Amino acid sequence: MGTVTKLIESIGKNARSAAKELRVASTGKKNSALVNIAKHIDANRKDILDANKKDLNNGKNIGLDDALLDRLMLDNERIDGIILSLNQIVALADPIGEITDLKYRPSGIQVGKMRSPLGIIGIIYESRPNVTIDATALCLKSGNGAILRGGSEAIESNISLFKCVKKGLVSAGLDENCVQLIDTTDRQAVTELVKASEYVDAIIPRGGKGLVEAISKNAKMPVIKHLHGVCHTYIDKDANTEKAINISFNAKTRRYGVCNATETLLVHASAVGRVMPELITQYLAKGVELRGCDNAQKLSDKIKPATEEDWDTEYLSAILSIRIVSSMTQAISHIDRHGSGHTESIVTENYSTARRFLTEVDSSSVMVNASTGFADGFEYGLGAEIGISTDKFHVRGPVGLEGLTSQKYIVLGDGHTRE
Amino acid sequence: MGTVTKLIESIGKNARSAAKELRVASTGKKNSALVNIAKHIDANRKDILDANKKDLNNGKNIGLDDALLDRLMLDNERIDGIILSLNQIVALADPIGEITDLKYRPSGIQVGKMRSPLGIIGIIYESRPNVTIDATALCLKSGNGAILRGGSEAIESNISLFKCVKKGLVSAGLDENCVQLIDTTDRQAVTELVKASEYVDAIIPRGGKGLVEAISKNAKMPVIKHLHGVCHTYIDKDANTEKAINISFNAKTRRYGVCNATETLLVHASAVGRVMPELITQYLAKGVELRGCDNAQKLSDKIKPATEEDWDTEYLSAILSIRIVSSMTQAISHIDRHGSGHTESIVTENYSTARRFLTEVDSSSVMVNASTGFADGFEYGLGAEIGISTDKFHVRGPVGLEGLTSQKYIVLGDGHTRE
Repeated sequence: MGTVTKLIESIGKNARSAAKELRVASTGKKNSALVNIAKHIDANRKDILDANKKDLNNGKNIGLDDALLDRLMLDNERIDGIILSLNQIVALADPIGEITDLKYRPSGIQVGKMRSPLGIIGIIYESRPNVTIDATALCLKSGNGAILRGGSEAIESNISLFKCVKKGLVSAGLDENCVQLIDTTDRQAVTELVKASEYVDAIIPRGGKGLVEAISKNAKMPVIKHLHGVCHTYIDKDANTEKAINISFNAKTRRYGVCNATETLLVHASAVGRVMPELITQYLAKGVELRGCDNAQKLSDKIKPATEEDWDTEYLSAILSIRIVSSMTQAISHIDRHGSGHTESIVTENYSTARRFLTEVDSSSVMVNASTGFADGFEYGLGAEIGISTDKFHVRGPVGLEGLTSQKYIVLGDGHTRE
Repeated sequence: MGTVTKLIESIGKNARSAAKELRVASTGKKNSALVNIAKHIDANRKDILDANKKDLNNGKNIGLDDALLDRLMLDNERIDGIILSLNQIVALADPIGEITDLKYRPSGIQVGKMRSPLGIIGIIYESRPNVTIDATALCLKSGNGAILRGGSEAIESNISLFKCVKKGLVSAGLDENCVQLIDTTDRQAVTELVKASEYVDAIIPRGGKGLVEAISKNAKMPVIKHLHGVCHTYIDKDANTEKAINISFNAKTRRYGVCNATETLLVHASAVGRVMPELITQYLAKGVELRGCDNAQKLSDKIKPATEEDWDTEYLSAILSIRIVSSMTQAISHIDRHGSGHTESIVTENYSTARRFLTEVDSSSVMVNASTGFADGFEYGLGAEIGISTDKFHVRGPVGLEGLTSQKYIVLGDGHTRE
């Protein structure tokens, strides 16, 4: 057996044993671990920032681009953010053990559901070192063991942050193997991890489409996957002009590099006259490149032609494609064909139109009169998110604590036997 | 491309197109299809029974055993059961479109969840022809397209029942391809179906452990799997004697060939004296073979030694293994090690013991003072079940309509933009 195979097996076995204890750990113990981790991070800022500097220097040496270096970078403000996020997760209700729908059945038994952990979650992520702590916190609070595998470019930062995790676990009286970090940068470790279905109950890949697709293809266990976000805003013929302009502008320009940014604007032909001149002015003033269908191009000579490929593209940058449609049916068809099932929003004052859009659009978030930028675990009240699932199986949309749990049935009787 | 590959592709494409319509079909239309199917089955009893006779004759010729022939057999009473089951599913609330947890967030948006279908479900099953109708009904009502693949031994019965499905769909104005039956007995069809992730969103194998394992291994889409039921009843030291005896006897002897039958009885040493003599007498009188640990064997010379293999065996017959334990901790360890995560029950009057058992036992159903025989979709109030999931991912325990759905987020705003 190779070294990496042995490493993953040993991590897996340790995780199984630790997870058994964590599964039934009290809320108090789990919270105390999270509070302790936050304290250790606060007390070890210098070590963490030093480690991060090493990563940044290595990154510069191997020619990482500025966007990647920015994601990699930690400073005191970002460490404050990590600590705040830990304390926010402490404040969330413990999902484990929650009993719902407990009802009497005609036989006399009471049947309900009790929420319990999935087991052990493998998280494979890139650059951003804060994921080490976010993933730790969400898994711990939801009673799941965690096996973390960060990007090689962030290895020093992750090891440094992870030291605080270990200390926090131990000082709360939990098994230090509840959370483990794969500290080799050997890519073989990922290959082995996603095959280890005996030790890992679910895999969450956080990263680009390539990473997610590769892992989904090879994983021997369920994958909670977030592929990409080709999000749409549809301005209906019955849209309020001001709302249409504000929402469409915000949905594209709030932040460009995020998955919930609108990439394609669909506009009903009868709304074009009252919304597009102003919107085009605003987009261009903000530096957004516009690409449109034939009819859209007629609105301004600044609008370039959109190709078929444009409709399928997650730009993640200051580009917007625009299509004029003749009906909501056509808008929904466009979304069905080109959308990624992430988030779509309609702007309309028409009750029946809104009701139909909510029902017919098959995406993880469907909105009426709100910016697609709201598609986010914090905005939805999950307190935190480990990703956004574009799958339908198990969990859909922003994934918080509940998404990392399952429900078992509980039955309460008083000597009941079945006929 | 081979004939079977072409067949599956054609079925898949038709299913995708039909499922799009079914996803948004009204409750009335779906119910009307179910009622029509029931009427057609009632009107075509003779054809169905004739077809079933062909299957039974073929089965006898190829030497199927009596248990299998019994599962295959239809008569007027069983057809009544199929019709009743259809009407019961009509009476269930439509899960699709249900909105829950709609709450205002600090930003002013309202966020909630709306239940929607998974898409297209592939169901692979054996012998029992009623599954053709149960699966049809559950998928239809939950807005999912269905691709059915029954056992080759039931092919004539399935084709005959399926004719009624087609007629029912068409007369309700639904696309006849909402439900499709793979009417070739070529095994290659299963191989192709479980690879067709483009057309099938989830696979449900209903059958023996071999079938389920083979499909889980090869499927390119999520599998809702029911592996096997090694269920336990634990008689605690604080058990009420009468309840302990009644529950343990019922859990084993109600029916032998079912997955929720207790296969191993765990008895606390201090309860042995007051429960075991009577229980042993009852079991032996009923013809149950008893196998026990060393201490259990001392209770009667009729108790044979249990091997290590016994603890892991789903007997599905009149055999019970018995182990005397010195604590609940030991009982739970035994369940952890040998159970299949299906159903376990404790008999106790002790509040803290019951509470601990419910929390610590990691099975799809955990019971207090009730027979494991209750683990069943009908008994739990799901109205019907398409199987019992021993998985934790997506759905656990008996799977009814909700298990075939997912929840998307909906956001209602009034022109809200995000900062």
